[in-house]
Amino acid sequence: MAVPDPRGDFGRFTLPYCSFVVPGETHPRVGVGVDTDVLDLTAAAGVVVPDHRSLFADGSLDAFLAAGFETWHEVRQALAEWLGDDAHAHVVDHHLSPADQVGLVLPFTVGDYVDFYASEHHATNLGRMFRPGGDALLPNWKHLPVGYHGRSGTVVVSGTPIRRPVGQRRSSDDEVVFGPSVRLDIEAEVGFVVGTGSTLGEPVSLADADRHLFGICLVNDWSARDIQAWEYQPLGPFLGKSFATSVSPWVVPMAALEAARTRPPARDEPLLPYLDDEDTPPWGLDLRLEVRLNDEVVSQPPFDGMYWTAAQMLAHMTVNGASVRPGDLFASGTVSGPDHDQRGSFIELGWNGIEPLKLADGSTRAFLENGDTVTIAATAPGPDGEALWLGEVTGTILP
Amino acid sequence: MAVPDPRGDFGRFTLPYCSFVVPGETHPRVGVGVDTDVLDLTAAAGVVVPDHRSLFADGSLDAFLAAGFETWHEVRQALAEWLGDDAHAHVVDHHLSPADQVGLVLPFTVGDYVDFYASEHHATNLGRMFRPGGDALLPNWKHLPVGYHGRSGTVVVSGTPIRRPVGQRRSSDDEVVFGPSVRLDIEAEVGFVVGTGSTLGEPVSLADADRHLFGICLVNDWSARDIQAWEYQPLGPFLGKSFATSVSPWVVPMAALEAARTRPPARDEPLLPYLDDEDTPPWGLDLRLEVRLNDEVVSQPPFDGMYWTAAQMLAHMTVNGASVRPGDLFASGTVSGPDHDQRGSFIELGWNGIEPLKLADGSTRAFLENGDTVTIAATAPGPDGEALWLGEVTGTILP
Repeated sequence: MAVPDPRGDFGRFTLPYCSFVVPGETHPRVGVGVDTDVLDLTAAAGVVVPDHRSLFADGSLDAFLAAGFETWHEVRQALAEWLGDDAHAHVVDHHLSPADQVGLVLPFTVGDYVDFYASEHHATNLGRMFRPGGDALLPNWKHLPVGYHGRSGTVVVSGTPIRRPVGQRRSSDDEVVFGPSVRLDIEAEVGFVVGTGSTLGEPVSLADADRHLFGICLVNDWSARDIQAWEYQPLGPFLGKSFATSVSPWVVPMAALEAARTRPPARDEPLLPYLDDEDTPPWGLDLRLEVRLNDEVVSQPPFDGMYWTAAQMLAHMTVNGASVRPGDLFASGTVSGPDHDQRGSFIELGWNGIEPLKLADGSTRAFLENGDTVTIAATAPGPDGEALWLGEVTGTILP
Repeated sequence: MAVPDPRGDFGRFTLPYCSFVVPGETHPRVGVGVDTDVLDLTAAAGVVVPDHRSLFADGSLDAFLAAGFETWHEVRQALAEWLGDDAHAHVVDHHLSPADQVGLVLPFTVGDYVDFYASEHHATNLGRMFRPGGDALLPNWKHLPVGYHGRSGTVVVSGTPIRRPVGQRRSSDDEVVFGPSVRLDIEAEVGFVVGTGSTLGEPVSLADADRHLFGICLVNDWSARDIQAWEYQPLGPFLGKSFATSVSPWVVPMAALEAARTRPPARDEPLLPYLDDEDTPPWGLDLRLEVRLNDEVVSQPPFDGMYWTAAQMLAHMTVNGASVRPGDLFASGTVSGPDHDQRGSFIELGWNGIEPLKLADGSTRAFLENGDTVTIAATAPGPDGEALWLGEVTGTILP
């Protein structure tokens, strides 16, 4: 699969949600992706889902996320029926705008943002680069989904320019120097959006994940490798990540991804009961990501090989009693496959700058340069075997 | 100073803010600590600060925090004048309730929560315990305030019971085991509450810290040392911390702490310009903390020895372009002084369980037991040399 076929066209099955601003207005509206258009659900809700119209009044997904599993299902079903009934065609048309003619904004208020590290290939690649003498994977990696909290206040919507971060780093001769990052990278990830919250002190089991996970978005967890390398011992990444995390404007509901559900890879270590998913419905997802640098495809990471699933991440994140809230976002960590052209970060594609990536124009690229635009897109198998377009997240580096 | 003199009595200078619920009501109100009472500012604002009454209408500090430095100053001055004028005494009395007869709730919506590691004594103690052969401090420690993001959704108000967290840990014979933490600890910290937000891409300088930092609260960053030890490589603390972080219900405005401002310790390494505070007004704070275990004072950590100041933490946190929002909370990390009875965590007081703390009743204590109540209180020097009471944060461990 070179370039996803349905690029930019959501069709009428996926029905992803967004928040958009009409030119000339300031208040956002909740939208639904229909073909290449956005349906104004804030306006149409009175007709389509009159009992739930208040959920969409403020133009964000916040109230809808909190409304719970049954409501998500009712709204999706009502939308599908309404859109599928030709009798409503002229009313539907009245509420559609071409998606490229509206402003897409951050669709929900991000609560806590957690980033995991769930690709074995990614973790192994980084282990080989940074601990060449030691084991590629640390001892805990196959026992629990390693993760950490990121900065929710700097989660930005796709298209937001990314200013190259400034900070401390250690120079090659071990001096502490200050300036713009010289090893600016991406991490191509999938993000999971929490709908229903949980109660402090009560873990969410694998079996209950369905009731809490509303949908997915695409995430670019921009990373300043040089800042991160100097700061991260012993408490983990901080300023190397916190300057910006970009997300796609579309949240694709889990209900649209039933055909993408697949078994995760075989587990190499026995898992504790709260993480053991051998007998649960599969939570692996057969998504195909694509990373483009200035319109050139540089990587196509497959998501189906991710060692840890979203349900496991949620179960782990709450096993200590921590609660989740509507709008919490957790991301998979860099999605990397086994092949070179399936790596989801430049540090892997260029092997820490040692074997820079060769581009089509003959130049090479170790890390990002000012003016570079990086876009991450994805597709999933749909119910009839066709590829569903899941949207994309893009950003351009400013000096 | 054994026990702070003015325990529970705020006097009429400090004027800390809270959010409280009157028995029989559900909606919170903004309160101000006056002597041992709470003043209902949501009700009194129409008289005291009529132009700003809307800031207090929703019962949280959110709008007031965002209103900015000039407004904070105006409100504090108006409150002081109104309270000081005997002509208003009967109106004031009408708006006062004993603080111990109202319900104190979380006073603001926590945006991002960051925890630093700013005490040299604490970092050195932990380095000695965990890297006995190596340098006690890692190479970056004196070049930047090390920190990481914590979970804002599990920040709870003082008095909230703390359920002992469950999770994975490594047993003494290197097996992965699962169950309640057996090394549950505290971290006695001071938290800084961000008022005015900043703009993405624009660092906050040391000189501008005054305009962004609204005030302080007390923080107990509960820590499951066994869960943390197994999970934290390579991305830092996660579930060992995320089950709960308790904060005092009172936010003491920075304006009340002018007399506590003091020079931080001499710097052992030259600092980069964005952190160099040699010629700025001092941001060290001469606060005295007290840690009580079941009403026995077990530690009295001094805050004036903290190596990194709040202004440096804020400057560092934003130097990469990351923005802050009203309600962001960042904490100092464990406050430990040079003496044994100045250590702000049990892992230090009992030296990782090797030399358990001796209690007054003859028993010893390495880590927390079920039913234990831990309280962290603090005082600061006031304008006339008297000790100002800053409130306390308490929590009891449930099984």
